[in-house]
Amino acid sequence: MTFAGNHDPDDLHDESLHERHRDPFAVVRPSSTSEVSALLRWAFSHEIPVTPRGSGTGLSGGALPVNGGLVISFDQMRDVVRIDANDHVAVVQAGITLSELNERLEGTGLHYPVYPGELSGSLGGNVNTNAGGMRAVRHGVTRHHVLGLEIVLMDGTIVRTGGPVVKSSSGYDLTQLIIGSEGTLAVVTEVTLKLSPVFDHRATLLVPFRELDAIAQIVPTLISSGLAPSLLEYLDVLTMTSLTRSTDLQLGVSPDIAEITAAYLVIVLETRTAEQLETDVAEAAELVGAAGALDVYVLEGAKAQQLIEARERAFWVAKAAGANDIIDVVVPRSSVPKFLDEVASLAASHGAFVAGCGHIGDGNVHMSVFQSDDDQREAFLLELFALGVNLGGAISGEHGLGLDKRRAYLALSDPVHIELQRGI
Amino acid sequence: MTFAGNHDPDDLHDESLHERHRDPFAVVRPSSTSEVSALLRWAFSHEIPVTPRGSGTGLSGGALPVNGGLVISFDQMRDVVRIDANDHVAVVQAGITLSELNERLEGTGLHYPVYPGELSGSLGGNVNTNAGGMRAVRHGVTRHHVLGLEIVLMDGTIVRTGGPVVKSSSGYDLTQLIIGSEGTLAVVTEVTLKLSPVFDHRATLLVPFRELDAIAQIVPTLISSGLAPSLLEYLDVLTMTSLTRSTDLQLGVSPDIAEITAAYLVIVLETRTAEQLETDVAEAAELVGAAGALDVYVLEGAKAQQLIEARERAFWVAKAAGANDIIDVVVPRSSVPKFLDEVASLAASHGAFVAGCGHIGDGNVHMSVFQSDDDQREAFLLELFALGVNLGGAISGEHGLGLDKRRAYLALSDPVHIELQRGI
Repeated sequence: MTFAGNHDPDDLHDESLHERHRDPFAVVRPSSTSEVSALLRWAFSHEIPVTPRGSGTGLSGGALPVNGGLVISFDQMRDVVRIDANDHVAVVQAGITLSELNERLEGTGLHYPVYPGELSGSLGGNVNTNAGGMRAVRHGVTRHHVLGLEIVLMDGTIVRTGGPVVKSSSGYDLTQLIIGSEGTLAVVTEVTLKLSPVFDHRATLLVPFRELDAIAQIVPTLISSGLAPSLLEYLDVLTMTSLTRSTDLQLGVSPDIAEITAAYLVIVLETRTAEQLETDVAEAAELVGAAGALDVYVLEGAKAQQLIEARERAFWVAKAAGANDIIDVVVPRSSVPKFLDEVASLAASHGAFVAGCGHIGDGNVHMSVFQSDDDQREAFLLELFALGVNLGGAISGEHGLGLDKRRAYLALSDPVHIELQRGI
Repeated sequence: MTFAGNHDPDDLHDESLHERHRDPFAVVRPSSTSEVSALLRWAFSHEIPVTPRGSGTGLSGGALPVNGGLVISFDQMRDVVRIDANDHVAVVQAGITLSELNERLEGTGLHYPVYPGELSGSLGGNVNTNAGGMRAVRHGVTRHHVLGLEIVLMDGTIVRTGGPVVKSSSGYDLTQLIIGSEGTLAVVTEVTLKLSPVFDHRATLLVPFRELDAIAQIVPTLISSGLAPSLLEYLDVLTMTSLTRSTDLQLGVSPDIAEITAAYLVIVLETRTAEQLETDVAEAAELVGAAGALDVYVLEGAKAQQLIEARERAFWVAKAAGANDIIDVVVPRSSVPKFLDEVASLAASHGAFVAGCGHIGDGNVHMSVFQSDDDQREAFLLELFALGVNLGGAISGEHGLGLDKRRAYLALSDPVHIELQRGI
């Protein structure tokens, strides 16, 4: 166990956009579950708050230390405990990053399909926020791929939940209760994951539209078709322009098309055979064509990869461009056009400016918010979240509440929910 | 609301195999959530135990009344509240059966893909047991398709959890906590479901093997292949023989093959195009051939349907044959052969006889247990469950614990788990 008494506060940020001055009591880097247990037992008996910390890629302040609290960093706990190739199961320590896990799975024909975009994120962090991401439209979210956990309760008790089986109907599902609980119930030390087969054939379609509405309207058709796209993203023209400029990405969209484009739909299809890919690409092209697509660009290998990587970087680009906040809201798929329309009016009335992209197949919209006045911005966001909730959605589809959205969540939720959760 | 003061006790059985004499205080049939709320408030204030009841198809005694308790039957609450075709969401009352829901979805191109086998089961019951079934190998279990719930707490408070969105990362996931909780935390009155597209092309392969081990060994290969079978079932030769005899099913297996067959693998493939189906059937046949299949029968439409229906009836056939208990255990996929071997030895030492079939793609084994002596049988089952748990599995993959498996669960579980659950 490493004890970083003389910690560097710069190491303790996350990727959310607010400045926060927080001074933890200490940062410790345990290397085993029993060390985590000892730390929690000690902190519990001294009533010292504890914040578990993965790789600090969160956007909601969930990994930030509490003043005077103990930070448990998981950067010394990133081993793969085992891979059961026959059961399609991997057991990993909570600190491992998605890219480290991917590396270890290379050559097995299997992968962990959840893809929150930030591959340096830790599995423990993914579990705590129930991370979703770009591939959720086909594969679902973290919750659907975690079979079991090892957790440490606040008093130091070590508990295993679930296990390497894909079904259980035996008692309350403690695994599911912990997933998405943002470290408030227990500290996750080990995760048992379900792996999925990798598909060898892939095509990436870039489809410009004159209106975002048309994109929202074609999404249910694409999903009903059974094409099962593994990625279904939209980028408004502002986001796309910042991305291509900041990364020098040449996508080959003709200038006269680009000029009249309001938003782009990106579709990734993955199949088992080359023939099926060809059939599927043709059908997808036909469907978007019938829905008013201005053109369909099938991107070649490297270009496709660059576009997805650029999409991953959308957040960094917005940050560099001076965005004051970055949020994710989820609404029913069919309500996305209405939601975006009303957000635009709201933004105008609060002097804010919003650029967007997101997982449109899931109704999960990411927005970069530009409004440097804190009070104005907070008022705007509260109305924006209320709008999402009124449309049947939720304040966060995948980033979690953290410290940032706590106030909005408390204001907008059924008090009975809050009571029930406090009870737990 | 119907009040059945003069209830017929025969109406209150479930499909588990134990005789139980239970005399409820009353059976009521509310027709709305507010009536359910009023009932619970009343029962709560009078400290009367309540048992919610769907259609009584459970196998673990979960819907059986408590002596002197109140039974809330959901047979007057089976409406479809709405279907959002664009969002691929259906909202239904808890009493609706799977077959009623299927009927309502006909022609939409969408279905609710969870298929526990017993189509007269209610959605509320499915939620309470986290029902799995034959299609789980591709589509997952109930938990993966429920987006939200309306529940009534024991004191009558009505709460909505989740909603018509496929992702959320906002507070504890109360929906997931309720799923699988068998009515012990709240009464489910309404369920918001995620629907999936129907695939138009389907083939059913019946594959005899000389040894069950070979079936267990080919399963990971079939799943890794990306063929994504929607059904992957095994039936041992005893189960298959009882099925074909009791239903007069002619599957066309040649007598000399049937004679040396120990178990059958059933594979269903569903694809979007006819061409893909042809390719996939050929690949599946090649894979099972290489794994020692004695032959591969591709069943035609009606025959295929009959086989699946017969498989659904496996339980009824076992019941008719005089089985004394029917259980479901889940173990890691690769441990199925070891599990079945050891179960056979255990059975012999307890004078019991076991016939089996099940969802081998999920390691979920269903067994008909023949041993009429209650004490002997209970001793055998406790050892059998312990074996499953020791292999990393769970006592029930999908039926739930109910009253029947409560004792085994309490004996075999980590006391900390039991404490945590009592805390909730």
